[in-house]
Amino acid sequence: MSRFVVSLGGNALGNTPEEQKTLLEHVVIPISALIASGHEVVLVHGNGPQVGMINLAFADSSTTPEMPFPECGAMSQGYIGYHLQNALDNRLRSIGLSRAVATVVTQVVVDAADPRFHQPSKPIGAFYDHETSLKLQDEKGYTMKEDSGRGYRRVVPSPLPVDVVEKAVIHSALKAGHIVICAGGGGIPVIEQNQRYVGVAAVIDKDFASAKIAELIDADTLVILTAVEHVCLHFNTPDEQLLRQVDAETMQRYLDAGHFGQGSMAPKVEACLKFVAQAGKTAVISSLEKAVEAFAFETGTLIKS
Amino acid sequence: MSRFVVSLGGNALGNTPEEQKTLLEHVVIPISALIASGHEVVLVHGNGPQVGMINLAFADSSTTPEMPFPECGAMSQGYIGYHLQNALDNRLRSIGLSRAVATVVTQVVVDAADPRFHQPSKPIGAFYDHETSLKLQDEKGYTMKEDSGRGYRRVVPSPLPVDVVEKAVIHSALKAGHIVICAGGGGIPVIEQNQRYVGVAAVIDKDFASAKIAELIDADTLVILTAVEHVCLHFNTPDEQLLRQVDAETMQRYLDAGHFGQGSMAPKVEACLKFVAQAGKTAVISSLEKAVEAFAFETGTLIKS
Repeated sequence: MSRFVVSLGGNALGNTPEEQKTLLEHVVIPISALIASGHEVVLVHGNGPQVGMINLAFADSSTTPEMPFPECGAMSQGYIGYHLQNALDNRLRSIGLSRAVATVVTQVVVDAADPRFHQPSKPIGAFYDHETSLKLQDEKGYTMKEDSGRGYRRVVPSPLPVDVVEKAVIHSALKAGHIVICAGGGGIPVIEQNQRYVGVAAVIDKDFASAKIAELIDADTLVILTAVEHVCLHFNTPDEQLLRQVDAETMQRYLDAGHFGQGSMAPKVEACLKFVAQAGKTAVISSLEKAVEAFAFETGTLIKS
Repeated sequence: MSRFVVSLGGNALGNTPEEQKTLLEHVVIPISALIASGHEVVLVHGNGPQVGMINLAFADSSTTPEMPFPECGAMSQGYIGYHLQNALDNRLRSIGLSRAVATVVTQVVVDAADPRFHQPSKPIGAFYDHETSLKLQDEKGYTMKEDSGRGYRRVVPSPLPVDVVEKAVIHSALKAGHIVICAGGGGIPVIEQNQRYVGVAAVIDKDFASAKIAELIDADTLVILTAVEHVCLHFNTPDEQLLRQVDAETMQRYLDAGHFGQGSMAPKVEACLKFVAQAGKTAVISSLEKAVEAFAFETGTLIKS
């Protein structure tokens, strides 16, 4: 028996509640098989499209109050957590396993002095025209950036996770034999201010959050499920080369050489490297479609110290 | 040491995220004192104004998908749970207590054959004019009712809670020494259909849900905090009479005689009576302002078998 943290992309969950329900029916099949094999499992999911949708609903509505970004993230944890725990619980019972599934609303601590706070980079919410974007910048102090020719969007910083407020809850739920869903969307980011945790408008990379959770609960294996079966060198070129098993030192060299896309594969590789920097840990990056094989280390890119 | 389930009204949490944060700063003071006295505490909160707000934001927005009611409830659990756990955790640390706080996204099972499904009564979401209400009735199969002269609203049924999907999670979190926030808004209502739990558009009374949770985790005391310090006979008349300590049989007689307002005090009294029907249990109804005294059985209306 070994302890797994599995990280799922928010993009794999679709754009509407109906899509999300349908897609999750498939997602929970390999996860249930992993649980059936006797492993302990913690699930961390992204929330990009979902928190964007919630943010947009409140921005569009003139009859509801303004909803700050950490609160939108908290809503997305309830929304996705409910669908995921429902689908997983239904699946587990259908294969005769009586294991409880716990969605834990999770605050992740970031450092107010993290230099990343000075480089807002993660676009969130709606697209605006140039004039409105200047107004939002003036009136609300938002940082606005042009995004892929489609207009201007608010960008927020992406600080590194340093601690998880609910780590004891996650740990004890695991010890009680439950499956845990936590740190949805990378967690609700909080900074410490006068000995209090206070929510901040930021997006914590969900793979960094997964690696932090995996470290805090002393997991054996971190599995990041994404859109491709293997990490590649020279991705999408004639020289493309699949990576199957790579030691940490070599992977760090590939990362430093710029082989992996910023904001896509690079943070996943970096999260794995952070995790395997501890002795005896294994990280795997593979696709959701190949999850069963990836959990058995039979496909994907395996990273070990 | 004794095990408390404390039920808080959603109306006590205000109408905006800022109001909610400020109000919760006060709410967590008596709760922290109860925890400091060494008791185990489970918190259940209402979500009327909050789930209404979320529902309204999605109804107003033309760029986001339609959001079903159970999903809005799940969002409200994340939203309120985050604020409540944050405020409580901050308060506990400020008084030198290191106890983790767990918000558990909670599905509450209702019976698809519950006759209450045929009497939709709980108004949710926006007000519509008569013409739009007929259209919604036709197109979406909603039941619409005129509400207090302000227009037409969708009404949903309020079935009784029969089980809690995450009861093992709540129980083990308590045993691990955590404070638990669960069944927000009465829980996300699910029915069993082909051995699967499926969300339904309904509102479970949060006091009935509190009593069910209290029963399932074998709590000693159920405390329902509301707007008045005592339950009264002949409420708001010259004959008004405070109730301080009442045995279950007498309280049942008062309830049957129609002393308590439908949709306000009656379900609270009924929830308490369900709970104290088990041997050795105590229920208290009092105000949030008098919570400290109510937890010590020094004020409020105390109901015992």
